[in-house]
Amino acid sequence: MTLPESKDFSYLFSDEAKSRKPSPLKTCIHLFNDPNIIFLGGGLPLSNYFPWKEISAISPKPPFPNGIGAPIKNADEEAIEYIIPKAKAEIREEGDIPLERCLQYGFSQGQPELLKFLRKHTEVIHKMDKYSDWDVLATIGNTGGWESCLRVFCNRGDNILAEAHSFSSSLSAALSQGVNVFPIPMDEFGIIPSKLEFILDNWNEKAPKPKLLYTIPTGQNPTGSSLSDERKFEIYQLAKKHDFIIVEDEPYYFLQMGKYESPETRSSVEKKPTHEEFVNGLAKSFVSLDDEGRVLRLDSFSKVLAPGTRLGWIVGSKKLLTTFLYLHEMTIQAPAGFTQTLVSKTLNSWGQDGYLDWLIGLRHEYTVKRDTAIDALRQHLPVDIRDKTTNEPLVVVNPPVAGMFFVINIDASQHPKFNTEFNKDPKKVEKAFYEKVIQKGVLVVPGGWFETTGETVPPQPKESKVVLKPNEIFFRGTYAAVPLDKMKEGIKRLGVALREEFGL
Amino acid sequence: MTLPESKDFSYLFSDEAKSRKPSPLKTCIHLFNDPNIIFLGGGLPLSNYFPWKEISAISPKPPFPNGIGAPIKNADEEAIEYIIPKAKAEIREEGDIPLERCLQYGFSQGQPELLKFLRKHTEVIHKMDKYSDWDVLATIGNTGGWESCLRVFCNRGDNILAEAHSFSSSLSAALSQGVNVFPIPMDEFGIIPSKLEFILDNWNEKAPKPKLLYTIPTGQNPTGSSLSDERKFEIYQLAKKHDFIIVEDEPYYFLQMGKYESPETRSSVEKKPTHEEFVNGLAKSFVSLDDEGRVLRLDSFSKVLAPGTRLGWIVGSKKLLTTFLYLHEMTIQAPAGFTQTLVSKTLNSWGQDGYLDWLIGLRHEYTVKRDTAIDALRQHLPVDIRDKTTNEPLVVVNPPVAGMFFVINIDASQHPKFNTEFNKDPKKVEKAFYEKVIQKGVLVVPGGWFETTGETVPPQPKESKVVLKPNEIFFRGTYAAVPLDKMKEGIKRLGVALREEFGL
Repeated sequence: MTLPESKDFSYLFSDEAKSRKPSPLKTCIHLFNDPNIIFLGGGLPLSNYFPWKEISAISPKPPFPNGIGAPIKNADEEAIEYIIPKAKAEIREEGDIPLERCLQYGFSQGQPELLKFLRKHTEVIHKMDKYSDWDVLATIGNTGGWESCLRVFCNRGDNILAEAHSFSSSLSAALSQGVNVFPIPMDEFGIIPSKLEFILDNWNEKAPKPKLLYTIPTGQNPTGSSLSDERKFEIYQLAKKHDFIIVEDEPYYFLQMGKYESPETRSSVEKKPTHEEFVNGLAKSFVSLDDEGRVLRLDSFSKVLAPGTRLGWIVGSKKLLTTFLYLHEMTIQAPAGFTQTLVSKTLNSWGQDGYLDWLIGLRHEYTVKRDTAIDALRQHLPVDIRDKTTNEPLVVVNPPVAGMFFVINIDASQHPKFNTEFNKDPKKVEKAFYEKVIQKGVLVVPGGWFETTGETVPPQPKESKVVLKPNEIFFRGTYAAVPLDKMKEGIKRLGVALREEFGL
Repeated sequence: MTLPESKDFSYLFSDEAKSRKPSPLKTCIHLFNDPNIIFLGGGLPLSNYFPWKEISAISPKPPFPNGIGAPIKNADEEAIEYIIPKAKAEIREEGDIPLERCLQYGFSQGQPELLKFLRKHTEVIHKMDKYSDWDVLATIGNTGGWESCLRVFCNRGDNILAEAHSFSSSLSAALSQGVNVFPIPMDEFGIIPSKLEFILDNWNEKAPKPKLLYTIPTGQNPTGSSLSDERKFEIYQLAKKHDFIIVEDEPYYFLQMGKYESPETRSSVEKKPTHEEFVNGLAKSFVSLDDEGRVLRLDSFSKVLAPGTRLGWIVGSKKLLTTFLYLHEMTIQAPAGFTQTLVSKTLNSWGQDGYLDWLIGLRHEYTVKRDTAIDALRQHLPVDIRDKTTNEPLVVVNPPVAGMFFVINIDASQHPKFNTEFNKDPKKVEKAFYEKVIQKGVLVVPGGWFETTGETVPPQPKESKVVLKPNEIFFRGTYAAVPLDKMKEGIKRLGVALREEFGL
């Protein structure tokens, strides 16, 4: 069966993207490797003058029998050691990227060996069987990838959509580029498709139609929510109906721990899944549903290998990625060569199967962390306290099924000063409790920091506005950043802070 | 003597920079290292899960007695070998950046050990004795650094200034952001201050005043010209008078080979300069003249260590750099951790003196390359042919004193088809000769690719327009990209192409 080609969405591009031409210098760079041409064309320094004869590294070895975080003692059975030489001629294994290439100019899309691995990985995980001309493009991580999306699609004054609470840096990036971010109502399962549909069907026709939906479907930041496959399908249909691009920002995609079970019902022996079970158990991505090339998927090694790799990739149609490539030639050029060769070597040494072992191991670590966090939250937080009049719980913890974050929802109206000193302003409770937690020696982050507060010009109808539970505030915590014992202690302090602040 | 503080130039900022607030998440990141706080605030993965136990590298060892390009055979006297461990506790030498830190989030300004080296280096080279609050900020190279300058200062419709021929990617970056680049006349010694003054004094007052001058003072791309210290001083005074920021893009700064001497007068034994002689012999930078903080200097390792390091830095006032930092938190975050730790380790192992040895060695290599190129150009190009009527030379080669590029200037009117088939259009000669050189197996790049062609709205007075020699075209070649013997062969082919094309 031959697959259809992606559609042309270039009419959605920003003025910048529409006006940009590829650098004329790039039209002759292919002659650099032409044996018949002596290349006096570009300022490429000779690799003789790169001051690294070789670099090497030691990494853990699949299938990581003692867990992915186990210390390595250099023994052969636990570790792989590899050397990346300067010259191509000294390369020991096919697929290695010599320093003379990755430390030179060129290959703005990414080094071929890295891209090859990522293409295969993308096929393994997302199938990519709906249109033919998809590809991957290396980025410096999802912060940079999102910044590029804004540059490619948005002019000042444009509108985009995002979850009603979303990653503050992503929102700020849009705002500072003069792009308005309109909030879409969400619950603990993410964007509510019917609300999205209502907003779009009733969009103020004098305001520019939204060009993009920015979403973090898995382990959403900050709410910890995850979109179901069904909701994704509905949202994708809305993208077609209302003609916008979906940007799925998926740094936490492989931290899918599944449903939380309380200690009583939880199985004490976790069975390691087969690769097939693991892959089949993952949430369906937007990009895997996409038969038109209107989804851009931002993938990143930040949460899976390390943030400082500053390496990620975009999956999408070649038509769109070419425009990103032209932008990158004038902004980042390419991710750093050391990062590309080291990450590529690590992944290619592991192989696709070894990388799945790593991801399975990582998920295991985060499952233990998530379970420990939720156990401790249920133990230390006053989850059984309810308001005497309304019967509303003081604090709710919905265990996340994915990601790094848990959220504690608080009914601000139960604060003793709510009706008096705080003038019924939930924000004042948020501020007071934030100060309290720091005083008690733990840090969780106010949900207010993540509010999507944009409004279009002219404004949308009132009914489109997010209606949160009145007086509800929330705080974002993470089980990622500290070891288990410290986390338990931190959550205990959180409980103390909550009791003190609410006079229990 | 206490130095004055830099001035506040924030009124020149773009709307974007003016409206940007630091991310609220960054207001609590300092608590990450507070021993009294259990940090459940941010999604920072544990470094246990970074799959690199250590990385290591082999670099040449100062003072590089056999030249900086000599192959290393791993012998102790020629090489240094270093290991960068994951954990801080395993660090062997002060100043090393452990992987657990450089592969984590944070330090958007750059890793402290790298910044410390760069600050000291900046003092050694540029003195920085005119104002107190200067600093350095790590970048992903000068392409990214310049992109950030545009974002920090320019709105769509703003005007900036640049050399009449300049690096095409830098020009395109401005154009695609909707920024107009007005050309400043230049000769083989760079920007002509009197012309710049005339343009600014007669600036069409209805057009926004230029906010920036973008200049490549040393070994300019594409013309190979270098600005004298005197001209820099004059231009800096004009920046004060007309209140604009100077951005000096200096990737070629350390390739200052000095005046070309013909083989007859050239000394066969080159004396290696002392560090003091070397530093004192360097051109004065704009940043070294700056007593107000209105100069931003873009420095890069691309030409000095390797382009793929994707690492550079900006020197400027803290006031300006803080605004860059806030931008970078939403775009690049920070240069890749592997690059920062490896480059920092290399430099700190060499020390400031060792790095000067490297730079002296690099200059030597480029001096030999430049001399060989100019010798060959004088030998193989028809430099003695003159027009019978006008007595204008057909081809002129002005030996560069710095950088990677040579330029051959051609009198297009001497082309046999100039008055007939080509309709007296020098561009047609340029195109024909470009095709001819490729046909003859060598690549040099048309000067037309680098033209600064911007015009303000409303336009500037006619007298401000660049007047080039009529019918002059030029081609940019480099002696950087190929070994000496290949370069000589390439230049020979260039001579053949020129003779054939011009019917000699």
